[in-house]
Amino acid sequence: MSEQPKASATAAAAVAAAPTPATSKAAAPAIPLEYSRRVVLKTIFESGDGGLRLVGQRVVIGGWVKSAKENRKEPVAPPPAQVVPSTHKSGPKDVSCTEILQSRIPLIRSFIKIFGGSNYSVSEKLEPAVAPMPPPSSVAFLQVSDGSSPASLQVVVDSSITILSQLLPTGTCIVAEGELKQSSAEGKHAIELKVEKVLHIGSVEPDKYPLSKKRVPLNLLRDCPHFRPRTTTVASVMRIRSALTFAAHIFSQNHGFLCVQVPVITTTDSEGFSEKFTITAVLEEEEIVSLEGVKTAIREKRKIVEDLQRTDSNKEALDVAKQDLEKTTELASQMEARERISKSKSSLKADNKRPQEFFSRQAHLTVSGRLHLESHACSLGNVYAFGPRFSASRVESPKHVAEMWTVEIEMAFSQLEDAMKCAEDFFKFLCKWVLEKCSADMQFVLKRIDKSSINRLQSVISSSFERITYAQALEVTDKKVETKLEWGTAFTTEHLSCLADEIYKKPVIIYNYPKQVKQFYVRLNDDGQTVAAFDMVVPKVGTLISGSQNEERFNMLNGRIKELGLVGEEYEWYLDLRRHGTVKHAGFSFGFDLMVLFATGLVDVRDVIPFPRTHGKISN
Amino acid sequence: MSEQPKASATAAAAVAAAPTPATSKAAAPAIPLEYSRRVVLKTIFESGDGGLRLVGQRVVIGGWVKSAKENRKEPVAPPPAQVVPSTHKSGPKDVSCTEILQSRIPLIRSFIKIFGGSNYSVSEKLEPAVAPMPPPSSVAFLQVSDGSSPASLQVVVDSSITILSQLLPTGTCIVAEGELKQSSAEGKHAIELKVEKVLHIGSVEPDKYPLSKKRVPLNLLRDCPHFRPRTTTVASVMRIRSALTFAAHIFSQNHGFLCVQVPVITTTDSEGFSEKFTITAVLEEEEIVSLEGVKTAIREKRKIVEDLQRTDSNKEALDVAKQDLEKTTELASQMEARERISKSKSSLKADNKRPQEFFSRQAHLTVSGRLHLESHACSLGNVYAFGPRFSASRVESPKHVAEMWTVEIEMAFSQLEDAMKCAEDFFKFLCKWVLEKCSADMQFVLKRIDKSSINRLQSVISSSFERITYAQALEVTDKKVETKLEWGTAFTTEHLSCLADEIYKKPVIIYNYPKQVKQFYVRLNDDGQTVAAFDMVVPKVGTLISGSQNEERFNMLNGRIKELGLVGEEYEWYLDLRRHGTVKHAGFSFGFDLMVLFATGLVDVRDVIPFPRTHGKISN
Repeated sequence: MSEQPKASATAAAAVAAAPTPATSKAAAPAIPLEYSRRVVLKTIFESGDGGLRLVGQRVVIGGWVKSAKENRKEPVAPPPAQVVPSTHKSGPKDVSCTEILQSRIPLIRSFIKIFGGSNYSVSEKLEPAVAPMPPPSSVAFLQVSDGSSPASLQVVVDSSITILSQLLPTGTCIVAEGELKQSSAEGKHAIELKVEKVLHIGSVEPDKYPLSKKRVPLNLLRDCPHFRPRTTTVASVMRIRSALTFAAHIFSQNHGFLCVQVPVITTTDSEGFSEKFTITAVLEEEEIVSLEGVKTAIREKRKIVEDLQRTDSNKEALDVAKQDLEKTTELASQMEARERISKSKSSLKADNKRPQEFFSRQAHLTVSGRLHLESHACSLGNVYAFGPRFSASRVESPKHVAEMWTVEIEMAFSQLEDAMKCAEDFFKFLCKWVLEKCSADMQFVLKRIDKSSINRLQSVISSSFERITYAQALEVTDKKVETKLEWGTAFTTEHLSCLADEIYKKPVIIYNYPKQVKQFYVRLNDDGQTVAAFDMVVPKVGTLISGSQNEERFNMLNGRIKELGLVGEEYEWYLDLRRHGTVKHAGFSFGFDLMVLFATGLVDVRDVIPFPRTHGKISN
Repeated sequence: MSEQPKASATAAAAVAAAPTPATSKAAAPAIPLEYSRRVVLKTIFESGDGGLRLVGQRVVIGGWVKSAKENRKEPVAPPPAQVVPSTHKSGPKDVSCTEILQSRIPLIRSFIKIFGGSNYSVSEKLEPAVAPMPPPSSVAFLQVSDGSSPASLQVVVDSSITILSQLLPTGTCIVAEGELKQSSAEGKHAIELKVEKVLHIGSVEPDKYPLSKKRVPLNLLRDCPHFRPRTTTVASVMRIRSALTFAAHIFSQNHGFLCVQVPVITTTDSEGFSEKFTITAVLEEEEIVSLEGVKTAIREKRKIVEDLQRTDSNKEALDVAKQDLEKTTELASQMEARERISKSKSSLKADNKRPQEFFSRQAHLTVSGRLHLESHACSLGNVYAFGPRFSASRVESPKHVAEMWTVEIEMAFSQLEDAMKCAEDFFKFLCKWVLEKCSADMQFVLKRIDKSSINRLQSVISSSFERITYAQALEVTDKKVETKLEWGTAFTTEHLSCLADEIYKKPVIIYNYPKQVKQFYVRLNDDGQTVAAFDMVVPKVGTLISGSQNEERFNMLNGRIKELGLVGEEYEWYLDLRRHGTVKHAGFSFGFDLMVLFATGLVDVRDVIPFPRTHGKISN
């Protein structure tokens, strides 16, 4: 039992692992960190002083180099005038170098004090060099990010510590220990890390690494989804996405909604006639050649090689035979390894010989979770789901990929207006949350992606959304939009943009749609022509939320299923909810990925989804 | 614009829609409610007084009848002695009846005061009857639940208000308005709702409805996943599940982990050789008969019918022809309906004729999100995912179905111990959360499912988990377990149960597994034989968490992929993470559904997953 690793002790080592505890200057308390052996950079920057309160702290940090430069120095020796940084107009002054000189060559310290400018304090804390070293020939300034915040830390490494060239390529991972100092440069950094020990270097192969110091366009980044969160833009988007995820749960749970994990695998087509992915479970192919067979082959082939060697006949034939033997031996060892794994799982192994399909009926990936969610609303009251939804549509659209995350809300004892109100509150809550919790990232978005992003979010929070019927929407757009629509057809993106971006300039809720443009389960209004559905159309993005009061009357729903020629059997369980204890209920689907577009001002969902899946494209 | 529905006004109507505002007695403020037109029952019960503070409030409630009884009365008329409730020993007294008499027959009120017992106050607030009514002949006592809490509300309906028989079947939905009164019964209810107006009845077909007043065994309930959350047990489980979902996000986000939605559709087999579901996108079959063709057929068939009618020939032949025409007409109308829907979506319609597969490579449902998550850890630091994971294993096991939700955590700059510490904290946090936030449900679980549930959770919170190596675990179990294991084989459930339930009686973390029993990506220890993997085994459930420090060294990982004969191409992107900026990292997978088992004491995951998917079984 003495083997127990001491997690807390090792983790704590990342802060103040200082071998010299006599840091009388240490102003701030130790920075908390958990489960990772370094100080998260966000905790350095977050208090608004850029980290100045932490000057003097010894920390371990880790991250990836975003950009770097190396400043070569003349060989340093007296006369001291040479030491004074005078060659750089902007750019960081070579303080680190002078600091090292201070500590290592006490004799010239006084000279430096005279010539070295005023905005850095003399470090008293560096350990005396263990062994005499050659004077430093260069210093690297690394901009290092660990993905916790849009800001990067300037990390200063002296060539006396490590070979600098290996640190410079963009994408290099570095874990380093050192002291936080006030930055000498006039630039954006308040503090920098003076590295004393490099603990880890994860190098890159620069010719193969897809990212560089320069900005890579977003469409090119899509080819390397596993690396693109290392860019400041995608990292900011991912942090905003994460905050929005949390906000969706907080809103729902705080309003008493219960989270229900509706199934991804389903036999129910929630939309009626949607393009779906079908699921099959292919049984592992039986090994065509058995391991025993391969071993026999090896023996035979070895015999051939030995024969050829003995007869010393044809050199070429021998090589071919040898290669053949090698290949077969490799195959055998792979098969053995696989068999070991199989055996180790043997306690779980079942009869794998049955040729039938996995499920008794054809199953596919869910298009929408609303129908399944309804069943829980009609038991538990207010419920929500948050998960991936799928569409096999081959349409290329910047607002659509095959796998998208959706928040669905369903409420029993509720009607259309309740759902519209809830959708509005939900959307406003998320906007507010992003502004409050992601201010650094939103500032970055404002500067680098979309100047109107913060305004757009603020205006949503303060505005009262427009509510108009389908008929009204048709009327007001008719004068403005080129494509004229007949009553009973769906709006085009042109119409929606006209409403949200031009006419009302705020979110617009369109309701009471003609029944033919909405799903079979939406409740028929008393006019017999329109249904209790709504879409929330928002500026820049289009339809963000689609909702409805669903048909609670058995005969109406059953009639609609028949009218459309849907496969009745598929919906029997759904009809059951009307057969037994039916009640009015309403809900909506919220396009989560589109919300990330709305918040960031980006225009293509492929840039806000970690691994987007589109027609023809998949590589990981 | 005047058509705008007033959501807030209609919602507010559920509380205090009282037509008589002169309720001087109203003790408590209006109960908040949002988005649904009724007071959520939980808000009535939650303050611990059973709702007594709300006596006198007029509310609208909605829910489903769990059980009901109807008490028939003798025709009520003077002499007043007959009115005094004396026939029921236990069971609710027929207060409602006497109350109605009080308000309607003021002359007998004084008699009732004398005989009517002491524990109810005389209501002064009922409206005078609009029209004279026949004396009530019976009263229904409904136990109504709306799924918000394990408690149900006693709802008292007089037969003068509605036909009681329609309310009595279990599963009936009722929305009713009335006044909350102190309960007259000595039973479990502190208050009850005296109904004044029934707003909605959703009846059931009792012979077809699968639930009844009596408890239906869980295994039978699995056949109706769309109704079973109406049972108190499954509803409690679903509320606990929802709370655990929230807790998982709260722990992660509060510790600075970013949520990443890793893909469900993938080409990467994260386990090496797992049984997977394959995805195909079947293009919608082209309509074999065109609508035009059907219309021609209709014309022809109509002509035949007319001909037959004119010639007045064969009665039978006419009937057949008529039926045939009818069928074809129905087909045409279905096709028209579908076409309308297609047209309405025309702005999104693409070229649907391409026969090729949807994705360029064979895609399947993800087995684990850890590899994809790693890519984001190696950019963003600490990340987590929470989503469905899939296995096409045909093994029947109470701990396994085809689709299960998993929390995955991945941390850069971290090692095995960090992951073990984080897993322990995560698990403890969830246990604590359930005890704090689900106390009513946990009390129900304690009473009806598992007496040890609360103790089990408390003991996790207070215990320090045992940590032993695989070798140690092998040693200590060897003496106790019948099945002897060789070093290098996986533990059976027997071994795991021996460790967690018998020897240590608390969660046990087993680490340093032989490499052959763990995934290819786990980091090889210096001994060359074991890997930096761990399992957390917990009492009653078995392995709840599996984690590892993953191989950050390119050559080691690449070698392992080759050694096992995995398809190298599939893992190129994953190897990239070691090619460029590699770093030590660790993480784990947390079996969310198993956590619900652990909290509730249930033994089969099919009972805690909303719509479980198992081999051969799917129906919705």
